[in-house]
Amino acid sequence: MPAALITLTTDFGDASPYAAAVKGVILGVNPRARLVDLGHRLPPQDVRHAAHFLAGCVPFFPPGTLHVVVVDPGVGTGRALLYVEAAGQRLLAPDNGVWTLLPGAESAAVIRLEERRFWRPEVSRTFHGRDVLAPVAARLSLGADPRELGPATTEWVRLEVKPPAVGPGRAEGEVTFVDDFGNLITNLPGGVLASGRARVTVGGQPVERVVATYGEAGPGELVALVSSCDTVEVAVVRGNAARRLGARAGAAVVIQTL
Amino acid sequence: MPAALITLTTDFGDASPYAAAVKGVILGVNPRARLVDLGHRLPPQDVRHAAHFLAGCVPFFPPGTLHVVVVDPGVGTGRALLYVEAAGQRLLAPDNGVWTLLPGAESAAVIRLEERRFWRPEVSRTFHGRDVLAPVAARLSLGADPRELGPATTEWVRLEVKPPAVGPGRAEGEVTFVDDFGNLITNLPGGVLASGRARVTVGGQPVERVVATYGEAGPGELVALVSSCDTVEVAVVRGNAARRLGARAGAAVVIQTL
Amino acid sequence: MPAALITLTTDFGDASPYAAAVKGVILGVNPRARLVDLGHRLPPQDVRHAAHFLAGCVPFFPPGTLHVVVVDPGVGTGRALLYVEAAGQRLLAPDNGVWTLLPGAESAAVIRLEERRFWRPEVSRTFHGRDVLAPVAARLSLGADPRELGPATTEWVRLEVKPPAVGPGRAEGEVTFVDDFGNLITNLPGGVLASGRARVTVGGQPVERVVATYGEAGPGELVALVSSCDTVEVAVVRGNAARRLGARAGAAVVIQTL
Repeated sequence: MPAALITLTTDFGDASPYAAAVKGVILGVNPRARLVDLGHRLPPQDVRHAAHFLAGCVPFFPPGTLHVVVVDPGVGTGRALLYVEAAGQRLLAPDNGVWTLLPGAESAAVIRLEERRFWRPEVSRTFHGRDVLAPVAARLSLGADPRELGPATTEWVRLEVKPPAVGPGRAEGEVTFVDDFGNLITNLPGGVLASGRARVTVGGQPVERVVATYGEAGPGELVALVSSCDTVEVAVVRGNAARRLGARAGAAVVIQTL
Repeated sequence: MPAALITLTTDFGDASPYAAAVKGVILGVNPRARLVDLGHRLPPQDVRHAAHFLAGCVPFFPPGTLHVVVVDPGVGTGRALLYVEAAGQRLLAPDNGVWTLLPGAESAAVIRLEERRFWRPEVSRTFHGRDVLAPVAARLSLGADPRELGPATTEWVRLEVKPPAVGPGRAEGEVTFVDDFGNLITNLPGGVLASGRARVTVGGQPVERVVATYGEAGPGELVALVSSCDTVEVAVVRGNAARRLGARAGAAVVIQTL
Repeated sequence: MPAALITLTTDFGDASPYAAAVKGVILGVNPRARLVDLGHRLPPQDVRHAAHFLAGCVPFFPPGTLHVVVVDPGVGTGRALLYVEAAGQRLLAPDNGVWTLLPGAESAAVIRLEERRFWRPEVSRTFHGRDVLAPVAARLSLGADPRELGPATTEWVRLEVKPPAVGPGRAEGEVTFVDDFGNLITNLPGGVLASGRARVTVGGQPVERVVATYGEAGPGELVALVSSCDTVEVAVVRGNAARRLGARAGAAVVIQTL
């Protein structure tokens, strides 16, 4: 068993010392912990974006990896902090639904962090990532039993997601995620494009072509294709679809198959 | 003793190869070194920002951690390069005061890097992070004695900081740091807000409320509270106070307690 | 031999889960792999920028380091994916020339990745970094023989670069790279400035002074000097030359020596 892997996902940005402080606290407790940055520039306090982010990467990690997630608009309210086991992955996160798009979320084992002896002695009111999640992560990486962290619970916040409406000849969904290229990732299953003949609109604006790969279209063309997550994606070849269409997460996507 | 931890803090940005070159040089000398990124997008050549950044994270690391800091507006001038031991932490940095806000700075043990045999054979005039600090860090991580790096010194640049003026009924200080959320971190001790009743202004503009936690106010409210560093912080709940107030580091903060 | 070092260079940005997914896949195959981030915010799909980035950092890494590079505007076209050994470094990258500015590129040993048994079972059409390069990197780090990855080849895309024209009294070249400080790195050899007396223009705009180090000029001065890569660099002391001159990669640089 290699030294414990702990990943970090935050909205702290990288000109602020917060992510670094989380690393310091973890390594202060377990200097052998192996830290892996997943991202520290997630949109501030955007739990929905973070949830899609996690769904796009967490499942690839080896079983037992511990993921510390600090996108926490509710810090300083009564919201709980959770330890989660779902489909072999382990997470520490505020109880805001951020992990609930992961596979296996519905049958997760969840514990509320309540045992203060695992925390830093002084807990600030604005930085539970450093004062609670980091020391708990380090203690888990040293072999602490999760059941000692607090009581099990079956109550947690679930992120509400509107499932797409897929019928014969027509599918309606939305943009769930805009990536750094400006590609629009939707919640529509890639199979909707299987015939290769479809009329796609985003926020009412037509997409020029349906293609199997970026390579079929020329630079600047606005295309729909199957994304790396097996959903429908709208992209500008070597360009930025979000900017072109003025679209963001939540924009309506309609596909008429021909 | 786990393999040597070396942290990296720079203003190099992440589209440039400079931080990567520093990593390459360190690993080229000691392939077992364990690198931890603290941040590479600090505001360019802003020593004051970097000093507050370090104060907010370095103290959490395990004793003996080696921190390489390259925010170096004076590269190519006669400024010295230093090895510092302060309160159990070890740093390599230009002599520009960047480490002098750390606890224990006044009683630090400081060495001027002068022994060129620890450096890269060719030292450029613009990149001492790669050519001096990186190889010295790697050699230290392999067990080199710091006293061999050069002479001890008791002279170094201190960052000038204006202490806040805290009197009965009134405290005056300033914004020391704007974080990535746009929260304004000040140099006023959190205790000033202890009564919960105070009138706070930033650059003459009034702050709406004093709260104990973000959760007491609604989204968009401009509040003052005690920060995670135990100082007064001004924030917009789920928003950006720096943008709202047009405030940056150095802005005057006045608190009248009631 | 320490655990395998694998570096990552991408244009994925850090609000998207793509770089994190690559890390997950690598660690899923080899949990002991040691990952080093070189940069994930390279300009999107800018192979030329990425090539100069790699040239500025890869040569410093210890021999045998494996560099995974995903700047891949051609994903989904027929372009090959390559394993490269050049001057002791090992790379995995799309066949778009991104590695061909490295020393030793002309005499590299190159293999086309064709053996699908090293890949993820399902390969998407838009994310070969995750589905091909990551699992191949992990298998190599576990000791796989590169010759099993596919056939050797002597055909690959070379990045076209225009060599500078250096004659007596006059040298003409171009900006090859704009760094995060806004410094303009050129392809003109630093020796052109050896006399210290030269007239330098960028896109026809004159540079104020030739200096040996930043320290010789005052803040805000536009200067030419020898860069950390031994080429001519144009910089604004404590400022941003790219913004000042409106210059970007490709801008003409002319030097008249006096």
